[in-house]
Amino acid sequence: MADINVYDRLEQLGITLPQAGAPAAAYVMSAQSGNTVYVSGHIAKKDGKVWAGKLGENLTTEEGKAAARAIAIDLIATLHAHTGDLNRIKRIVKLMSLVNSTLTFTEQHLVTNGASELIADVFGEKGKHARSAFGVAQVPLGACVEIDLIAEVA
Amino acid sequence: MADINVYDRLEQLGITLPQAGAPAAAYVMSAQSGNTVYVSGHIAKKDGKVWAGKLGENLTTEEGKAAARAIAIDLIATLHAHTGDLNRIKRIVKLMSLVNSTLTFTEQHLVTNGASELIADVFGEKGKHARSAFGVAQVPLGACVEIDLIAEVA
Amino acid sequence: MADINVYDRLEQLGITLPQAGAPAAAYVMSAQSGNTVYVSGHIAKKDGKVWAGKLGENLTTEEGKAAARAIAIDLIATLHAHTGDLNRIKRIVKLMSLVNSTLTFTEQHLVTNGASELIADVFGEKGKHARSAFGVAQVPLGACVEIDLIAEVA
Repeated sequence: MADINVYDRLEQLGITLPQAGAPAAAYVMSAQSGNTVYVSGHIAKKDGKVWAGKLGENLTTEEGKAAARAIAIDLIATLHAHTGDLNRIKRIVKLMSLVNSTLTFTEQHLVTNGASELIADVFGEKGKHARSAFGVAQVPLGACVEIDLIAEVA
Repeated sequence: MADINVYDRLEQLGITLPQAGAPAAAYVMSAQSGNTVYVSGHIAKKDGKVWAGKLGENLTTEEGKAAARAIAIDLIATLHAHTGDLNRIKRIVKLMSLVNSTLTFTEQHLVTNGASELIADVFGEKGKHARSAFGVAQVPLGACVEIDLIAEVA
Repeated sequence: MADINVYDRLEQLGITLPQAGAPAAAYVMSAQSGNTVYVSGHIAKKDGKVWAGKLGENLTTEEGKAAARAIAIDLIATLHAHTGDLNRIKRIVKLMSLVNSTLTFTEQHLVTNGASELIADVFGEKGKHARSAFGVAQVPLGACVEIDLIAEVA
């Protein structure tokens, strides 16, 4: 899959990229240093609104997984806005996934698979990333999941 | 603001950098790899002591924002100690902000703005960073906020 | 200690590296970009099983520190699998340590010292790393600690 066109793949998967978001404060959605792009933490959204909730309390693991998948699409939209061409991405290097959790919910890895699997589907070999997933006390605006990402561009 | 002298800017803002802190254990306050400087998580301090508290319980968002601003100054002090000259910093690339939160406090982004805005004030264009902010169950020594940082040096 | 042979040092310390783990999902245990290796979050294990527990609730700080030390050994095993030769590692650059904590436990730094001290013991000067340690609401599978790592290879 090394030579896959990322936009063709998105179309095959039936994914339309949203407009990349804009930060509400004194920071940016992505910053590049050398060939490394750091993408800011993106919170889960549904129909353009914050996807609020806490795993273990009022959302199922499957719902959390769907939220993580939605974030991955938003992260890709930000990478598209940053690079101008997703085919310039050499590797999705690292994901950090923060799952809004009760003190007893322990399936953050299954929730995060929603993002990891989407990235694998879209980027193939280039999508093989390291990751850390864990449960946090809260996420800005009460979103159920927040994910950030490091990518390498050619 | 590309050619701003960072020390002039600190003086204009009335900021005196503290002595950079020293770690209490088997790690260092900053480590460089290539042109990338990784600064360790700095906990909030007030008058040289740990700024303890939990957002949503015994600190307001405004107090948390002031704590995040204080951490940003300490992070800059560590960057000064690391580089010897803050003007060598090409870019503040990424912030990770951990806000000591109850399970219901959801304004971690507003708290973190205290750091992001200070960095924008001091570094101008070079201060435009990606960031992730979220609520954690606790921070070492009960500090109300902890922030780490990645910077690029020339 | 710059020219220490890492395998000799492991033997002196009486440490046998385990088989590196395999991820259960659509991600990898380590990903390299340029000279930078990002190692995925590793959860604490004891006798090959998840080392479950929450600091402040059912594990002491000393037990948490032992768990962090065990993770550091697993991280080194993953670096061995990634590099083929641990002596190629130029620097352990950054650790992120997530301690499964109650809302009142504040000794995440002491827990994390278990990993930092082991890395200093094994890598000497090359092991001097930046780090961030904090308390999280939960960790996948209920593990008591999770740690990820960034290393530079020659």
